[in-house]
Amino acid sequence: MKGDQAPEDIRSDSFDVEATELRADLLDAQFDLAESCNRAILILLNGPDGSGKGEVLNRLHEWLDPRTIATLAYDLDDRNDGRHPLAWRYWRDLPARGRIGVVLASWYHLVLKARTTRAKSRAEFARELAAIGRIEEMLDAEGTTLVKIWLDLSAGNARRRRKAKGNRMERPGGPRNPLVREWAAIDTAKGRRRLVEAADELIATTAGSDAPWHRVPADDPRARDLEVGRLVLEALEKARRQRPPAPGRPQTRPRRIAPGPSALDALDMSCSIDRSSYEAALARAQMQLFELTHSAAFADRALICAFEGNDAAGKGGAIRRLRAALNPITSHVHPIAAPSDDDLARPYLWRFWRRIPLRGHVAIFDRSWYGRVLVERVEGFAAMEDWRRAYYEIADFERQLTDSGYIVQKYWLAIDQDEQLRRFEARKQTPHKRFKITPDDWRNREKWPLYEAAVEDMIALTSTPNAPWTLVESTQKRFSRLKVLETLVARLEAEL
Amino acid sequence: MKGDQAPEDIRSDSFDVEATELRADLLDAQFDLAESCNRAILILLNGPDGSGKGEVLNRLHEWLDPRTIATLAYDLDDRNDGRHPLAWRYWRDLPARGRIGVVLASWYHLVLKARTTRAKSRAEFARELAAIGRIEEMLDAEGTTLVKIWLDLSAGNARRRRKAKGNRMERPGGPRNPLVREWAAIDTAKGRRRLVEAADELIATTAGSDAPWHRVPADDPRARDLEVGRLVLEALEKARRQRPPAPGRPQTRPRRIAPGPSALDALDMSCSIDRSSYEAALARAQMQLFELTHSAAFADRALICAFEGNDAAGKGGAIRRLRAALNPITSHVHPIAAPSDDDLARPYLWRFWRRIPLRGHVAIFDRSWYGRVLVERVEGFAAMEDWRRAYYEIADFERQLTDSGYIVQKYWLAIDQDEQLRRFEARKQTPHKRFKITPDDWRNREKWPLYEAAVEDMIALTSTPNAPWTLVESTQKRFSRLKVLETLVARLEAEL
Repeated sequence: MKGDQAPEDIRSDSFDVEATELRADLLDAQFDLAESCNRAILILLNGPDGSGKGEVLNRLHEWLDPRTIATLAYDLDDRNDGRHPLAWRYWRDLPARGRIGVVLASWYHLVLKARTTRAKSRAEFARELAAIGRIEEMLDAEGTTLVKIWLDLSAGNARRRRKAKGNRMERPGGPRNPLVREWAAIDTAKGRRRLVEAADELIATTAGSDAPWHRVPADDPRARDLEVGRLVLEALEKARRQRPPAPGRPQTRPRRIAPGPSALDALDMSCSIDRSSYEAALARAQMQLFELTHSAAFADRALICAFEGNDAAGKGGAIRRLRAALNPITSHVHPIAAPSDDDLARPYLWRFWRRIPLRGHVAIFDRSWYGRVLVERVEGFAAMEDWRRAYYEIADFERQLTDSGYIVQKYWLAIDQDEQLRRFEARKQTPHKRFKITPDDWRNREKWPLYEAAVEDMIALTSTPNAPWTLVESTQKRFSRLKVLETLVARLEAEL
Repeated sequence: MKGDQAPEDIRSDSFDVEATELRADLLDAQFDLAESCNRAILILLNGPDGSGKGEVLNRLHEWLDPRTIATLAYDLDDRNDGRHPLAWRYWRDLPARGRIGVVLASWYHLVLKARTTRAKSRAEFARELAAIGRIEEMLDAEGTTLVKIWLDLSAGNARRRRKAKGNRMERPGGPRNPLVREWAAIDTAKGRRRLVEAADELIATTAGSDAPWHRVPADDPRARDLEVGRLVLEALEKARRQRPPAPGRPQTRPRRIAPGPSALDALDMSCSIDRSSYEAALARAQMQLFELTHSAAFADRALICAFEGNDAAGKGGAIRRLRAALNPITSHVHPIAAPSDDDLARPYLWRFWRRIPLRGHVAIFDRSWYGRVLVERVEGFAAMEDWRRAYYEIADFERQLTDSGYIVQKYWLAIDQDEQLRRFEARKQTPHKRFKITPDDWRNREKWPLYEAAVEDMIALTSTPNAPWTLVESTQKRFSRLKVLETLVARLEAEL
């Protein structure tokens, strides 16, 4: 665990001089970051076994103020840890603006491994890197700076280190440190060569981009640590000059960005059902939902329902009927209110990722991640460039969930303006419903055409085969509630 | 899932009148609570199968504003969920002041079950209830009001409901809702009788106390729901008149509350070790730590290290040597700074419970839950009555951890006043250490005798056989670091 015994190019005393200066600069920049909260810094530390990822990690913790730096480390081969989608753990631990995170076993680990073992073709590899690239662009746009480091080891040194590590750590039957032997599964001459090739491919794809990989020669541990320190300092210095994401302006004219036929106009708002048919059908649908969410097939899946709708369209009542059919131990309702300071310090999707259910569980969102393209767009809580890119980021988010076997069901509960007025007036008259109607609701009502355009865009741009929108005619509450439950039953039956 | 078919004593129209009034009052009181943040309300909903816990839960969600109420529900028989101590999940989900939580499957579930099956004697049962009582007193003192409800069902109704539920939910091979059949394992005539007896015992132990159980007759669902609503209203009304925990006053005179010989005076502050012995011994201890924390025996245990010490005593350096010996994937260092608003809205121990490691993992606390009896005591951040009871609450906390197989190791790193002055001066001279020394440190130094009394009390009152303090003579950093690692090795060897 002490310094490596390989020959070192940088002499101890010259290292001390350089390190002392670097540390002072790093601390200065780190304090500025913690104070300004301009950006979060995420350092991805990657490299072959023996390149010293653990040593670099300890060095960063020695050089930086431990109060605002944290390690994000995962055993990605631990199958017991698979109760959430892979990305969930990174999101959960994402540093807030003002803080620094160091990632060991980053999201590149599994794709690199798959490419190294030839489990993925070159084309698949490229596709996965492109998907990762989109997520990283989003992180950057949302205030997180990535510092991507690949520790490079010459072949001779790699051999020497492997041997030393093997003697120290890997006695037969002894403990196994998943980090020390991150690439143990491919530890053959061919595997090592292919890992280097895959890393070359990976690094080449981002050359010249805004988030390039930095190759850091790792043969000399002192030079390696200084170089990593300098890269981190550079990122901190750059963050000094950047500004955190800022809000935009409220919209004043309804304008669609994805013009096309109106999905809302096509709804028949007079749909209704009589009470006794409703009660029988509701009880049946609830029983089916109970059974479907307790079935063996559901145990490896998960259900995420997003409820959006006009104010007073009846989201609460529909959610209550749904909740009554579910197991309270494995289902959660998440009312989404205005973001907290903790939420605002991180990329927009963070507070939704945090609430992603375990496999076999259900999460119901009373309002959802669509807030960005609805209220934030209309009221200007997000800048235009931010809500515009959100359509594609949301599609990526949902794709990641459905690719992991999650079922994503989205409801828009629609009423018209007259019905909304009737309900607002009725709520004013009922003591226990008065709380549901606030000055905000009346103000939003004034902006009906703006919201309508936003809803039409949302439906047009985010109705994907894997996560379709269900539009619910909600003039009659009975009809609305029943349609929600019955379409959900149909979806689950199709999926399971 | 719809209303039960049993005869009902309250007529539908009179229920509607009463419920309407109750809902308005509940909402009023709930909004007041959310605004004042005086207290958190935790409703424990217990009762035999068929008493309608799920229905009451849905009723509360219907009557109250869903934005500030949440359900805490657990499958306590799910053995896969055992990677943390039992209490951890309740702490994780504990509502902040201003909010309401409803607990299904509360901490009474397992003790009641053990008593019902006679797995526990009457004396053990009483002991466990006393332990729970102490924790509940602490929750109350820290701002959480408990509303403990037992839903009572007459024998005839219990039979009828069981049958109805059985038909609806429990077809052979069909799904099993752990909540619907919470007591299914004891579902025999004898088991049911014993559950009632155990509940009687339980309820009798708290009669007349500040946190009594409320028996609510559950034969008539409408009367049951109204009664639960009234109990919740009562708790909310009471919370209106209460104040949240307030700080105290800074101490001015050093006074021990547990007088006795000084543990610190007994230390030999001249302990030292030469560099080459140190380096060899450090490498050996690190290797042993690595092996011990990767051993099969450790996989079911977990290690929690708390580091406290005089300012500049070298906690950071010792922690770095320790971290270098651990697997970054399974070990985390938690620097404990001033509490956030989220922390302050919950009982003191919440932020430590949140950071309790998984089994097989290691958590290192750089400062710890002892803050309450050190800085909070001396500076008056906590009232005297609050820090005085903390000694016993901390002992309970650690006992819960060690009873769950966790290893709790606590270090006090001691230097004397002269050595501290030397280090403060040295830090001022070193650019990358300057950040470690703040005006606070100089102020704390003025209060040396106050802190010393607090430390002596802490050692005297919280050195338990299961979680002993290790005092570390830290004048020489080498000696200090090595003693930390070597005593930890010895502890792990003894435990595993």
